[in-house]
Amino acid sequence: SNTFDLDSNPHTRLNILTGEWVLVSPHRTKRPWQGKVEELSPDNRPEYDPKCYLCPGNDRADGDVNPAYSESFVFKNDFSALLDDTPLASFNEADLLVANNQKGLCKVISFSPKHNITLPEMKVADIASVVALWQKEFNSLSENQWIKYIQIFENKGEIMGCSNPHPHGQIWSLSDIPAELLKETERQKNYYAVHRKSLLSAYLQLELEIQERVVYENDHFVVLVPFWAVWPYETIIISKRHLTSIKYFTEAEIKSLADAIKILTVKYDNLFETSFPYSAGMHQAPVNSGDYPEWHWHMHFYPPLLRSATVKKFMVGYEMLASPQRDITAEFAAKKLREMPQVHYKVK
Amino acid sequence: SNTFDLDSNPHTRLNILTGEWVLVSPHRTKRPWQGKVEELSPDNRPEYDPKCYLCPGNDRADGDVNPAYSESFVFKNDFSALLDDTPLASFNEADLLVANNQKGLCKVISFSPKHNITLPEMKVADIASVVALWQKEFNSLSENQWIKYIQIFENKGEIMGCSNPHPHGQIWSLSDIPAELLKETERQKNYYAVHRKSLLSAYLQLELEIQERVVYENDHFVVLVPFWAVWPYETIIISKRHLTSIKYFTEAEIKSLADAIKILTVKYDNLFETSFPYSAGMHQAPVNSGDYPEWHWHMHFYPPLLRSATVKKFMVGYEMLASPQRDITAEFAAKKLREMPQVHYKVK
Ligand SMILES: O=P(O)(O)O[C@H]1O[C@H](CO)[C@@H](O)[C@H](O)[C@H]1O
Ligand SMILES: O=P(O)(O)O[C@H]1O[C@H](CO)[C@@H](O)[C@H](O)[C@H]1O
Repeated sequence: SNTFDLDSNPHTRLNILTGEWVLVSPHRTKRPWQGKVEELSPDNRPEYDPKCYLCPGNDRADGDVNPAYSESFVFKNDFSALLDDTPLASFNEADLLVANNQKGLCKVISFSPKHNITLPEMKVADIASVVALWQKEFNSLSENQWIKYIQIFENKGEIMGCSNPHPHGQIWSLSDIPAELLKETERQKNYYAVHRKSLLSAYLQLELEIQERVVYENDHFVVLVPFWAVWPYETIIISKRHLTSIKYFTEAEIKSLADAIKILTVKYDNLFETSFPYSAGMHQAPVNSGDYPEWHWHMHFYPPLLRSATVKKFMVGYEMLASPQRDITAEFAAKKLREMPQVHYKVK
Repeated sequence: SNTFDLDSNPHTRLNILTGEWVLVSPHRTKRPWQGKVEELSPDNRPEYDPKCYLCPGNDRADGDVNPAYSESFVFKNDFSALLDDTPLASFNEADLLVANNQKGLCKVISFSPKHNITLPEMKVADIASVVALWQKEFNSLSENQWIKYIQIFENKGEIMGCSNPHPHGQIWSLSDIPAELLKETERQKNYYAVHRKSLLSAYLQLELEIQERVVYENDHFVVLVPFWAVWPYETIIISKRHLTSIKYFTEAEIKSLADAIKILTVKYDNLFETSFPYSAGMHQAPVNSGDYPEWHWHMHFYPPLLRSATVKKFMVGYEMLASPQRDITAEFAAKKLREMPQVHYKVK
């Protein structure tokens, strides 16, 4: 297997967490680009915006007024995609039209009172306060027996459908376990049944030996470009301890995750000297539905940019109809990110 | 099951072709939009562009010169994502790093010598010549025993990663069957084993009885918004006859598919009075790898626009991490498309 050339031949790679494959075309980076170039939104926001529904003291759509908060702040989304009073019911016509009601609760979490800041520009201590709030929310939401999965995530940047530049994330709680999580549960369960250790512990150990895809490591977390990355600069943060969820993070781990997020997002911003867009979110064990000893907490970062602040990777035709496809390799992306300074380009 | 309200409660729907679920949030259409608004590229292209690598008589990157073609024209992609000389080989490290070489052949197909036209603006007879060329390519590519799947598709519009506005599509042939096709094969095979008819024949019959999601029907094809549509105005074209692939299209079917594509894309353009972007492509039986009596030819259209020519649906955070999500229902989208005139807005 030493003769297999991950660097030049087109090949597919297996995502061990989902069982899905990505097509890698390493030779294709020379493709000329005459297509869409993103507009950059000006980076000159005020620290406080009187029209922003996330800034302290402002009105929200539901009539509430935000408190004068000084760290982070969480509230129920005024335009939730899910509602917590949906009656549970099912629909099935000949196994051809199949639907289930979905009960849920959508919350918004502001990361900072400042309108014009983003995670990479925040102090590690302030990011740690966000992580602590994620943990607190996870724990209290889990107390609702009907909630089976809690999805914590952030859409950063207009290009990622973020509808307000004020730094914020979302927490969606659901009465069913969503598709991606079912896939990851099944694969981790199968591995655990055979090996009696978590899939990601084994994977992490191998990656730490090889080092080629590792971007950053601290006492409790490793940031790396997964072997099966789909997005050009996709990364994953994996906890060194085999923890099923954020519930079990110690205070030291909360600080360490904040540090890892800070370093990773600073490197991202430095890559193209732009506020780097992404969608990011944690994957962890479902709640109120049995034991998940196989589950290993991790956090995915899916950033769309490919070549510059304005040219992204399009997941379109072939990708939608057949299989995800990427051009630069995971190893190339990891090297690039590793080489990026840990100090934000605006601070230099 | 009559009390199940597909119209107002958030619910999930099953994609019977892939086994995947989509979250539908019908109440959420009132969400305000302060996010990204797409730039429209000006719609004033010349009929011939001396710098376009698809226009007749022009030079291409590989040194070839395009013929003075008058209908459609196909050639090997100068920047192929796949190469036909890749040696087949595999890589496996402890079942954690798993990769396979992928051999392939990428072709580009120009739909018209005219640089400034798109499918909805072409005559049905000219679209039929494209369909006939698709069939011819499918048949001749299948003669290569190493090719297992032939993906015919089009990315239309800058927003869908189309790198050249000259009307064109692509044909990627692969030495392996891609992920989406494996899913659709499995589901169709299971259904066929039990019912001895194709899954899509049964589905089509039911939809034609209900009519609610049907957009257009001619002698040989039905255009409808599938019950499990993910994109706001996603549609599927299904052949009335149970055909495994385009290979079996009669001349009448070639003309009928051209008619269905014409009507559908005209309706799309009329919806927001813009050149409606989408990725579209056929799904059909794999080749050179046994029999697929269960396979039923169909063509998916995945268009991103949600509210207007400039506001699209973002498949981001929750969608990437957990499950696809949509706001308007499939029934609403079908009604809208049904109501659109069959004459292009520019012609009126
Ligand atoms: O080959 P093209 O048209 O240059 O490229 C386009 O289609 C490909 C196949 O869907 C995608 O991989 C690219 O991201 C997209 O920009
Ligand atoms: O809820 P928001 O931030 O307004 O909306 C954003 O995130 C959601 C969850 O990923 C997506 O469904 C929307 O398409 C996106 O615009």
